[in-house]
Amino acid sequence: MKIRTIFALCLATATLTLTSCNSSQKDENVTTPIENIMTRTSIRAFTPEKLTDAEIETLLRAGMAAPTAVNKQPWDFVVVDDPALLDSLQAALSKAPITRANCQQVIVVCGNMQKALEGDAQAYWIQDCSAATQNILLAAHAMGLGAVWCGVLPIKERIEAVSAVLKLPSFVRPLCVIPVGHPAEAPQPKDKWKSENVHRNAAW
Amino acid sequence: MKIRTIFALCLATATLTLTSCNSSQKDENVTTPIENIMTRTSIRAFTPEKLTDAEIETLLRAGMAAPTAVNKQPWDFVVVDDPALLDSLQAALSKAPITRANCQQVIVVCGNMQKALEGDAQAYWIQDCSAATQNILLAAHAMGLGAVWCGVLPIKERIEAVSAVLKLPSFVRPLCVIPVGHPAEAPQPKDKWKSENVHRNAAW
Repeated sequence: MKIRTIFALCLATATLTLTSCNSSQKDENVTTPIENIMTRTSIRAFTPEKLTDAEIETLLRAGMAAPTAVNKQPWDFVVVDDPALLDSLQAALSKAPITRANCQQVIVVCGNMQKALEGDAQAYWIQDCSAATQNILLAAHAMGLGAVWCGVLPIKERIEAVSAVLKLPSFVRPLCVIPVGHPAEAPQPKDKWKSENVHRNAAW
Repeated sequence: MKIRTIFALCLATATLTLTSCNSSQKDENVTTPIENIMTRTSIRAFTPEKLTDAEIETLLRAGMAAPTAVNKQPWDFVVVDDPALLDSLQAALSKAPITRANCQQVIVVCGNMQKALEGDAQAYWIQDCSAATQNILLAAHAMGLGAVWCGVLPIKERIEAVSAVLKLPSFVRPLCVIPVGHPAEAPQPKDKWKSENVHRNAAW
């Protein structure tokens, strides 16, 4: 074997190794789950680009991965991308950034009383659906998307208006509306750490 | 230069590259935020190892990073590691895995009505504190710890019992108790995806 051939072979190996190295090094910049939690913030302005069905499914899978009391999974998720319905939802939630001009789709997180616990424990659905909502917000942030939690429950007029727009059955209650999309703003995450919020044992 | 020298040089370069590659490849195994959401599951059995103050602070910082209605941050967090109090909390929450024999510490997530919104909107604190709870569960999982959401509200007897054990002021309401620690079990995460939970626009 000639020197040149050996050298070329070695160079090719090194190049190949370096190439695969570069793709690995990219992973050093992957956001960790805790960084993702700490840097998530509400996004209210979006580009005109719609989410893909796969992106929406990832968000919904994250939502359904939340824990629920007695594993009841007492929820339904309504994906709204009809422009007229988006305008109607915006009218129902005065300050929400949902108009068709700003937002291509929202996810409405609902409790389903046919799946919920009974009696006093029924209200656990609110905590279950809140956990699902938080998972969706975190997943959106991890995907480079933006989202914001627009409260519906417990405001009676909002519950009625959203239920009417989406023709929800009487056993389905909207908790919140999540506008989600590609961010058209980059606000600084708030630092909400306050040591005075922390207490030890029974010494309030 | 001799063939052997060139070959040795090339081999050294390749080895060096591969070594630095290996450290990068390790990062490929870093859990992404979405994997962390999808693989979190409830952990109810713990080793005797206590959490460090730094670990507890990370969990609490994650909790306080949750979004809240009108940014009210209507919460307080009680860290309980006193063995007698743990036993008392276990007595207050019959099925919770909180005895001193099993669990070294819990975080009690509370709403503070002096910080909450007023009127009908006050109840948003439940959603705010639920988002904080979910952040704590996800942060624990990301840190290799385990945790479980033990419901208190809306069950009146549990609210009263937990409030009495922790001597909570009347304006502070316990939402849930989170036993947290080093896992002594490794249950399989549940697959809770159900396509029938997903609806489009106003077509229920």
